[in-house]
Amino acid sequence: MKSHIYADNAATTKLSEKALEAMLPWLTGEYGNASQSYAFSRKPKQALQESRAIIAESIGATPEEIYFTSGGTESNNWAIKNATLNKPGNNGIVTSQIEHHAVLNACEFEKQYHGRRIQLLPVSKQAMIAPEQLINALCPSVGLVSVMLVNNEVGTIEPISILADIAHEHGALFHTDAVQAIGHIPVNVKELNVDFLSSSAHKFNGPKGIGFLYIKKGVNIPPYIAGGKQEMGSRAGTENVASIVGMAAALEENVQEMLVIQERLLHLETLFLSRLDTMGITYVRNGAPSHIPGNMSISFSGLEGEAIMHRLDLMGISISTGSACDSKNTQISHVLKAMRLEESVAKGTVRISLGRYNTEEDVETIAAAIRKIIS
Amino acid sequence: MKSHIYADNAATTKLSEKALEAMLPWLTGEYGNASQSYAFSRKPKQALQESRAIIAESIGATPEEIYFTSGGTESNNWAIKNATLNKPGNNGIVTSQIEHHAVLNACEFEKQYHGRRIQLLPVSKQAMIAPEQLINALCPSVGLVSVMLVNNEVGTIEPISILADIAHEHGALFHTDAVQAIGHIPVNVKELNVDFLSSSAHKFNGPKGIGFLYIKKGVNIPPYIAGGKQEMGSRAGTENVASIVGMAAALEENVQEMLVIQERLLHLETLFLSRLDTMGITYVRNGAPSHIPGNMSISFSGLEGEAIMHRLDLMGISISTGSACDSKNTQISHVLKAMRLEESVAKGTVRISLGRYNTEEDVETIAAAIRKIIS
Repeated sequence: MKSHIYADNAATTKLSEKALEAMLPWLTGEYGNASQSYAFSRKPKQALQESRAIIAESIGATPEEIYFTSGGTESNNWAIKNATLNKPGNNGIVTSQIEHHAVLNACEFEKQYHGRRIQLLPVSKQAMIAPEQLINALCPSVGLVSVMLVNNEVGTIEPISILADIAHEHGALFHTDAVQAIGHIPVNVKELNVDFLSSSAHKFNGPKGIGFLYIKKGVNIPPYIAGGKQEMGSRAGTENVASIVGMAAALEENVQEMLVIQERLLHLETLFLSRLDTMGITYVRNGAPSHIPGNMSISFSGLEGEAIMHRLDLMGISISTGSACDSKNTQISHVLKAMRLEESVAKGTVRISLGRYNTEEDVETIAAAIRKIIS
Repeated sequence: MKSHIYADNAATTKLSEKALEAMLPWLTGEYGNASQSYAFSRKPKQALQESRAIIAESIGATPEEIYFTSGGTESNNWAIKNATLNKPGNNGIVTSQIEHHAVLNACEFEKQYHGRRIQLLPVSKQAMIAPEQLINALCPSVGLVSVMLVNNEVGTIEPISILADIAHEHGALFHTDAVQAIGHIPVNVKELNVDFLSSSAHKFNGPKGIGFLYIKKGVNIPPYIAGGKQEMGSRAGTENVASIVGMAAALEENVQEMLVIQERLLHLETLFLSRLDTMGITYVRNGAPSHIPGNMSISFSGLEGEAIMHRLDLMGISISTGSACDSKNTQISHVLKAMRLEESVAKGTVRISLGRYNTEEDVETIAAAIRKIIS
């Protein structure tokens, strides 16, 4: 039996062996600055090109539409803050109550420092955003709509292409935070019809500290990090070749094996929930039927989610409660609040997020451990 | 004999073996998200603390004054754009004509999008900034002065503590881009008397894609990348533990061996220049007597620096011409222009930047190769 079971894959994931292997040459002998013009920079330059092509292909984009960043948070800040910088009369933003803090706090920043109008769309009890709500929110001053593709706390998949169509009809740009989706479910930017899409490598078994922003060809957005001419003049800073190559390798691997992994994760979910049922444990699974495989938000009414998390931790099992990026806070998360969960239900909520390295034994062990804690 | 001699250490450096070794555990088994509250996050959390302490100590700061970023360019953007965000009446910026593009283009961005007033201080023929020039430039609307500690093209060390004192007397904050200095010359933020200091790991044998911003205790600056509560609420995004640990290990190593390395680099400089002298080659060394060891900007009047670079490249030697981060451009760099070098001299300029892994044999080979090219 494993001494440690990691079931918090929505927070971060294990770097895949293929990704690490792909990174090592760029952390050792091939350390050249990819933007220099001598021979020693040719290989890193080529590695960037190949990585850009792999990533573009995996989301139905062209290589010139992929811009490397330091991660999902930077990508979100870039899109939110700069998408409408050239249109001061249309700089209002519509987003949702259940976005990641990287979006919500970027919006808050724009409100505080640049006086922008921010509107937050409400969600259903399953964390779904209704197209009518967006239609009602749109007014002439809105230049950008930002809605996440998959919610990090409950796994709900949002109807992005419908929302993007509505935004475009209104003349607004559309951004989606796809940090929880890329590498996990099929994503095609053309089908989604988005102008911007944020992604983070460490959520799909790539390294931490790297990500990308998809920017639709023809859409102009000023750089967020100004300086040198890297990334086609749109994102300055010496290229982090090793991490970019690792990101591409991890994404390629996850996309190639996606169907198999999805099927296994759905099987593990079913197995886990059936074990809870068999044990006679009462619970509610939160979120919508349309959800990302492996992400289970489960409420044990009347219990404390945080206490369950800590007890599981003592048994060598890592899961989450509350929000993905900061579990220190015992307050009910903004997502569960927006879903209007009853307080006793919300407080008893944990998030178990399975990943490609989890096994049947893992979920059996987690179920048995929860039974021990609850009874 | 080496098949490749790397002498462009001002552009980027080889990752040290100690740094890579320090990184590997965080790229393999210890992949936990440092901001989660379970046991699996304890080690990464501790690694961040230790890295922060090492870095703080190396520049005379306290750990709470060190904020990890994705590199020097982000650090510069953060300080330039946000230092005076809370003081709209004092948001003018004074900087210099010879700053890195990460500073100049961040200033340009603020001018274009937020109507800020930007003043560029001229420099002497040795690329030195005169305190009187700063005194003349300061007017009530100036809230920030930003001057680099070491120039990347010619190696000149600027009189930062004097300039910072002048700025403070005037009531302005002071930022220094120390990307070329950290890990190479002794830096103490208290002695420099700066409020902000930018650094980038890959310039001192650390990994690419990581850096830090020193923010003096008590100085308030809004976050540049908004989102989660990482970095004491001032820089959001899941922490890049491996790269942070690698940065700290590289800096610690370079600081410990600094005196020895400095001495060797000065010896290699002397050896190289004496070889040119012996060979009867006419050249001018640019920059000030107070310069960083290893960075040699050398002009061969009447020749083409770019052609020399390409010829050396064919002989397996990587050096630079023009600006550090983008050598594609054959125009005279903004630094050499600001120094008012004669055009024929400026065009014949190359930058040879030696690092800790260069040897006597390297500089002998470079000198002999230059002789072959020139004669």
